[in-house]
Amino acid sequence: MTFTPTDYDPYDFANRRHIGPSPSEMEEMLVATGVISLDDLIDQTVPQSIRQALPLGWAPLSEHELLARMREVAAKNKVMTSLIGQGYNGTVTPPAIQRNILENPAWYTAYTPYQPEIAQGRLEALLNYQTMVADLTGLPVANASLLDEATAAAEAMTMAERVAKSKAKAFFVDESCHPQTTAVIKTRAEPLGIEVIVGDPAKMDAGAVFGAIFQYPGTWGHVRDLTPWIEALHAAKAVAVVATDLLALTMLKEPGAMGADMAVGSSQRFGVPMGYGGPHAAFFACKDEHKRSMPGRIVGVSIDARGNKAYRLALQTREQHIRREKATSNICTAQALLAVMASMYAVFHGPKGLRAIAERVHSLTVRLAKALTDAGATLPPKAFFDTITVEVGVGQAGILAAARLEGLNFRKVGLDHVGISLDETSNEDVLHRVLRAFGIHSAPPAKAEIGFPEAMLRTSDYLTHPVFHMNRAESEMMRYMRRLSDRDLALDRAMIPLGSCTMKLNAAAEMMPITWPEFGSLHPFVPPDQALGYREAIEDLQAKLCEITGYDAFSMQPNSGAQGEYAGLLTIQAYHRARGDTHRNICLIPVSAHGTNPASAQMAGMEVVVVKSSPNGDVDLDDFRARAAEAGDKLAACMITYPSTHGVFEETVRDVCKITHEYGGQVYIDGANMNALVGLVKPGEIGGDVSHLNLHKTFAIPHGGGGPGMGPIGVRAHLAPFLPGHPETGGIEGPVSAAPYGSASILLISWAYCLMMGGEGLTQATRVAILNANYIASRLKGAYPILFMGNKGRVAHECILDTRPFAEFGVTVDDIAKRLIDNGFHAPTMSWPVAGTLMVEPTESETKAEIDRFITALLAIREEIKSVEAGEISPEDSPLRHAPHTVNDLVADWDRKYSREQGCFPPGAFRVDKYWPPVGRVDNVWGDRNLTCICPPVESYMQAAE
Amino acid sequence: MTFTPTDYDPYDFANRRHIGPSPSEMEEMLVATGVISLDDLIDQTVPQSIRQALPLGWAPLSEHELLARMREVAAKNKVMTSLIGQGYNGTVTPPAIQRNILENPAWYTAYTPYQPEIAQGRLEALLNYQTMVADLTGLPVANASLLDEATAAAEAMTMAERVAKSKAKAFFVDESCHPQTTAVIKTRAEPLGIEVIVGDPAKMDAGAVFGAIFQYPGTWGHVRDLTPWIEALHAAKAVAVVATDLLALTMLKEPGAMGADMAVGSSQRFGVPMGYGGPHAAFFACKDEHKRSMPGRIVGVSIDARGNKAYRLALQTREQHIRREKATSNICTAQALLAVMASMYAVFHGPKGLRAIAERVHSLTVRLAKALTDAGATLPPKAFFDTITVEVGVGQAGILAAARLEGLNFRKVGLDHVGISLDETSNEDVLHRVLRAFGIHSAPPAKAEIGFPEAMLRTSDYLTHPVFHMNRAESEMMRYMRRLSDRDLALDRAMIPLGSCTMKLNAAAEMMPITWPEFGSLHPFVPPDQALGYREAIEDLQAKLCEITGYDAFSMQPNSGAQGEYAGLLTIQAYHRARGDTHRNICLIPVSAHGTNPASAQMAGMEVVVVKSSPNGDVDLDDFRARAAEAGDKLAACMITYPSTHGVFEETVRDVCKITHEYGGQVYIDGANMNALVGLVKPGEIGGDVSHLNLHKTFAIPHGGGGPGMGPIGVRAHLAPFLPGHPETGGIEGPVSAAPYGSASILLISWAYCLMMGGEGLTQATRVAILNANYIASRLKGAYPILFMGNKGRVAHECILDTRPFAEFGVTVDDIAKRLIDNGFHAPTMSWPVAGTLMVEPTESETKAEIDRFITALLAIREEIKSVEAGEISPEDSPLRHAPHTVNDLVADWDRKYSREQGCFPPGAFRVDKYWPPVGRVDNVWGDRNLTCICPPVESYMQAAE
Repeated sequence: MTFTPTDYDPYDFANRRHIGPSPSEMEEMLVATGVISLDDLIDQTVPQSIRQALPLGWAPLSEHELLARMREVAAKNKVMTSLIGQGYNGTVTPPAIQRNILENPAWYTAYTPYQPEIAQGRLEALLNYQTMVADLTGLPVANASLLDEATAAAEAMTMAERVAKSKAKAFFVDESCHPQTTAVIKTRAEPLGIEVIVGDPAKMDAGAVFGAIFQYPGTWGHVRDLTPWIEALHAAKAVAVVATDLLALTMLKEPGAMGADMAVGSSQRFGVPMGYGGPHAAFFACKDEHKRSMPGRIVGVSIDARGNKAYRLALQTREQHIRREKATSNICTAQALLAVMASMYAVFHGPKGLRAIAERVHSLTVRLAKALTDAGATLPPKAFFDTITVEVGVGQAGILAAARLEGLNFRKVGLDHVGISLDETSNEDVLHRVLRAFGIHSAPPAKAEIGFPEAMLRTSDYLTHPVFHMNRAESEMMRYMRRLSDRDLALDRAMIPLGSCTMKLNAAAEMMPITWPEFGSLHPFVPPDQALGYREAIEDLQAKLCEITGYDAFSMQPNSGAQGEYAGLLTIQAYHRARGDTHRNICLIPVSAHGTNPASAQMAGMEVVVVKSSPNGDVDLDDFRARAAEAGDKLAACMITYPSTHGVFEETVRDVCKITHEYGGQVYIDGANMNALVGLVKPGEIGGDVSHLNLHKTFAIPHGGGGPGMGPIGVRAHLAPFLPGHPETGGIEGPVSAAPYGSASILLISWAYCLMMGGEGLTQATRVAILNANYIASRLKGAYPILFMGNKGRVAHECILDTRPFAEFGVTVDDIAKRLIDNGFHAPTMSWPVAGTLMVEPTESETKAEIDRFITALLAIREEIKSVEAGEISPEDSPLRHAPHTVNDLVADWDRKYSREQGCFPPGAFRVDKYWPPVGRVDNVWGDRNLTCICPPVESYMQAAE
Repeated sequence: MTFTPTDYDPYDFANRRHIGPSPSEMEEMLVATGVISLDDLIDQTVPQSIRQALPLGWAPLSEHELLARMREVAAKNKVMTSLIGQGYNGTVTPPAIQRNILENPAWYTAYTPYQPEIAQGRLEALLNYQTMVADLTGLPVANASLLDEATAAAEAMTMAERVAKSKAKAFFVDESCHPQTTAVIKTRAEPLGIEVIVGDPAKMDAGAVFGAIFQYPGTWGHVRDLTPWIEALHAAKAVAVVATDLLALTMLKEPGAMGADMAVGSSQRFGVPMGYGGPHAAFFACKDEHKRSMPGRIVGVSIDARGNKAYRLALQTREQHIRREKATSNICTAQALLAVMASMYAVFHGPKGLRAIAERVHSLTVRLAKALTDAGATLPPKAFFDTITVEVGVGQAGILAAARLEGLNFRKVGLDHVGISLDETSNEDVLHRVLRAFGIHSAPPAKAEIGFPEAMLRTSDYLTHPVFHMNRAESEMMRYMRRLSDRDLALDRAMIPLGSCTMKLNAAAEMMPITWPEFGSLHPFVPPDQALGYREAIEDLQAKLCEITGYDAFSMQPNSGAQGEYAGLLTIQAYHRARGDTHRNICLIPVSAHGTNPASAQMAGMEVVVVKSSPNGDVDLDDFRARAAEAGDKLAACMITYPSTHGVFEETVRDVCKITHEYGGQVYIDGANMNALVGLVKPGEIGGDVSHLNLHKTFAIPHGGGGPGMGPIGVRAHLAPFLPGHPETGGIEGPVSAAPYGSASILLISWAYCLMMGGEGLTQATRVAILNANYIASRLKGAYPILFMGNKGRVAHECILDTRPFAEFGVTVDDIAKRLIDNGFHAPTMSWPVAGTLMVEPTESETKAEIDRFITALLAIREEIKSVEAGEISPEDSPLRHAPHTVNDLVADWDRKYSREQGCFPPGAFRVDKYWPPVGRVDNVWGDRNLTCICPPVESYMQAAE
């Protein structure tokens, strides 16, 4: 008997591990959905006219093969000791933080904490972050992170313009700013009509600017007292921004003490690997009077239904989906996971430990400086913290080469200097190697003078809150991290059916390489031959994304979806400008667009013209044509989302593109809903000129509790020359992010995902995402009206449940969302794109069992609503209003009109494995009224508990 | 100003991370303990007469330095594709299992599931394991793992002797058994007086033996139908053991179908890395009628106080601490963590996936065999599964070398054969490389005949239980693993104050290297030059353990503490034998000894003579002297534990050793309490000749929910030649374990611990362990009598709380233990070494805050006991008896005589972060009466729930 093994492939990642429903489950789901096959469903859903001709071509790898390939690629990166500085420094990630946060799905698979009741753990960690930043910068208010230092600086510039009383239109940039910071500021300023003046602050004309930014310590190491310049700005009613370094601030006088209005910087060196550029959390702090103008997410303290302390995101009314074309920023992602890590690093070390680390680094630096000057070298910075710059004349190339032979990267500064930044990982050995690179073979001095004037020593306390004075034993720290994560509900416990957010599986194999030192330890500005592994990975990912989208080139620089939109529009504008079309400035955007679209257009200097929707939610083609005609040769672009934000494959998409092109505009197709397209439709083939892809939605990067994300942009060939450039890697346009490849290290996740899925697997994932959504729609349509369906009665990869009819009985969309917590679910997207609705996106990686559990929960909620409708119970008395139920409710006297059992164990909830929210419903109004954005004193915890 | 950084070292692992109490906490604790300094406490506790003269010498590494050193050492191991087989095979650890179990402290820091209410998660996983083993072997009952295949085979031999009706005294060992299995069986048989006959089963005289063991498939690959030999054995009233391979059994007729009475083997290839020898879980299955004779831990199904299904360890009355010198085995550790991994691997793949993997491996093997025979090679095994043996004549060395050039390790078989075992990781590329090593450059055939007779194909089903048919999407699997771990209480959530078990911190940095492929992928029998990294690590660890203990040599072979005892006693016996002292066979053991001591002595062929304790718990020196005199020149050894199992540093230890030596005996000092000695006292200096060290107690290897452990033994120079040998590495004595260095990969954890602590840090850890125990004793002595203190009123590193006085009021030690669960604690050790007491060992890595929480809990429990004493509440009505309280209690009608609040939130319990046990108090009697050791059918789940 010839032996032929079964064709069942146990290593088929796409169909066995990633895609949720098993083949037999899919059969049942197709029946319930009323189609005869998956092909049939896709035919009913995705218009034939836009389908791609050829399938995606590459074969899949198994998990085992993927890890082997990743190891191969990792080995092509050369891990040297990078003393380049420039905003990126070596750091020691405490292993307990690496293992218990960065490698723990309970942290990395969490969503943005919009539902505060199920996010108290990460909200506490982020509040710790804000407290840490506020303390170290000496400013009272801080947000819970921005994308990187350079974009934070650009945000500071635009905020400065808003809050300054000066009417000047220029912004001054210290020549000591990191080059990438200056470049990103320039990029940002140009479309907004802000003049950027780069120069020596000593020569600054404060009266000519609305604000200024200084780097402290400067990019070449200088420590300068900024007080006089800040005073001059204030005298001219202008504001002062300080880009700074948290570690230095443990020793140096803080920006607040020098009068700064804002401080920005990166918290990377607080335990977050460099990762060839990111992701890292940038910080932003400001004075109290400006706090309501501050960009980004802010965690605040409020109370829950029982009056207990509860955390939440504050000031959410400032979000882009509300301000739209009036938005002042398109920021909507934070670097939450990295901010959590940095805050834990501070908790781990406490003020004493941080100060000790800073002193250690400083001591090594002053000894190095002394050894060099003793040997006759000239060091321009006379006052410094951890960075020195050395005059080397024509010896620059030689010194850089000698350093490399010692396993070191110095920074090339100009043509005749080198820069050296020491860091937490530096030690005596590094000191000796640095000196040998200069030909100095004697031992460095054992001691040296302090490296900056004593007057610059910090005198104020910081990190005085008890959380930074916990016992620092690992047992205690591990349990603190575990307790926080247990308070939260993430993908590792339940489906997160968020519409437009695509909370799909983040597979373990995809995540593993991220924490390998060959990927984590690379400085973003290492010589290219040290990053051949990264290059291979990025180029292959770009090639695959091109194949998927039908575009010709990709820029990996934008480190969020909104950044991608903005970068894409800048690319369009640069293209128009290069053709002499400098007058093109109108951007058509459908009324249903995500709020970041108009916000990005505004930032790109475009005028937003809103296009109506037809009653079925599609773009109103007549209105579109009319608006395009009105714009005429001023039409720069249109921005559409496909399938639409209403979750429908509009038949008219080709027409929209055609009309735009007829008037000379470029088509921006927002890739937010790319999960409904991959393998079926290529945006570049249906008329798109540019798209960004949310790698954290469609390509498996975890949401990290609110970031990181990545938003690379693909363009057709004619736009490729106008993609963002970077001071370190060239290009004709300015950069949009601090690092050339954005948050490079997490690109590996998307690459791993593409490699393991294969072209066919990715396509099947899209098909199953559509199946899962249509299955939900079919099962729920009797209970909840489904808004917006295609002409064959199908939704795309998400569906909108209309809950507005319940309003007249007093049941709100909030009640439903909070009640779902009792069932152990994160709520769907609420009130977007239509107020009073829930948008559900199951993704392909949820199983039928989990989806059924969710359906059970929603059907049971519908029954509870019916009780209210029937007058059997008032909405105020119903479990809907009292949701979510907590253990406190169970223990307390029960005066409810329903049983404990009904309140706490609605259908769909797990019995043994029930998730209990740590707080009851959170009071949002109270929190915004009593805005507190740093850790409250311990007494207030006790009060809240009373 | 000369700049001198603070001397605060943020990277001081010992004092900053590992040791719990901070310096200020220690101050408070010293005051509460009534001593003026830690030195003072140690002087009051540890007799000056036994203190070591010199401090431990080596300097500590920081976590960062440790990981760098580990990477250096890892790079010295050469990862090749090992096709050696012989019980160890390449396997693909599913990344989701690696990340969510092996790298997750919720799994690896758990303790043995003696307290079933807080261990339901891992008990379910282990029940899955038993079900998997029972199904695949075709035998109805299985245990939840033994240490390795060879010791499992030895256990099978002794069990065969117990259950066989044959009165023969010999045991037959198939010459096809793995050499290390045969060797371990021989080691075990010798002291028990069992004759081992190794030979061809076809020539076996069934009437001359009480049992036989066959390897299936054989070590050289042969697949043979064992039925006729098993029938012959049965006819002679002897029993048949089959050592087998779980993967092969997915295709091959199972041992049960051939009539086997028992089956043993390793589950390593079910997703557990080879790790240079371990740890892996060995399995053991038997017929129903023999189940109560089966060694090892068995998970069974029972019910809780509400009649709901609950898992527990069954038949615990068979444990050694009860049977002592009547014990038939000293097994008391399982390989729980690895059994959990293997069971999850089966859940992950299901029967279809496992079968597909087996068929894939088999298909590659038959194609390889055909290519080789086509090329003229002779293969002795005509029927095979995944292993072939090839005649190579004088070409052996050449073929082995050619294979190495291809990156392959073949097995050297005899002088003129090589063995090749394919595995899950083999693929076309491996096939080509194997053929090239034979000089065959043509492609292997695309197909070949099946490699064994069709009559040997398995016909029965397996893994039919629903758990093996779950949806296998990673989302679902990840959540299953998360749910199970959430049901359990491990060190990552709370202190586990187990006396004699030393549940100290398992630091993340110590654990990380374990999952690096350079350590995980090594076959235990690779040529030494491929394992230079392991050698360096092991030798350095041995040197440090010698320095710590005062011994001269260490054997790393014993893979549990009990194995260490046994190996140590064998070493003593070999020494006596070599000196002609063949008559020495008496072992003196104090009555207070751990039950494994007499069990091990019995296994080593010694006669146990019990020595009395004096009332203060010390060894009764007069009785000891008398018993030694009685033994005279028959005295082989004494076995003592130091400090004693009562937790006291006996002043008389030197006398005990002296007396033993006077009569020519050797002193075995059990290292169970080494955590009270390291850096203060060296057992080798106070008179010990041999000790084992529980690396999983004192040296930071996590308990893994009931294993792995490691029990290496140290000896003085005169015993060194008699340490266990191994067929692969030589030595004059037989091996005690399957692999030369036991569970080699976890030695890295202990090495990392020693490296980061440094000599001084280890010593301080010991001192703080003693402080923590004395602080607890001081705080609790008013509430609970403390049994056994030293003559200065001090305990060592643990203390015994006497709860016997409460018995007369109806409050049991169980009540207290279960009530502690309501406070969120694992109970201390119950009723050992004294019935009706609790033994508490906090270890050095618990902080004062956590210890205080524990004290608060125990004081509150004492108040509850007082209420019972005062007659305010009956024991039956008290929260003590109803403990632990569950959410089910809270939701149900509350008819208790105390409030919900009092029941569920006793002092010390967390409010928000409360741990809820998934079941109420488990009924042990019900479970043993209705013994079920495989997953019950789903209907029974429903019944239990009704």
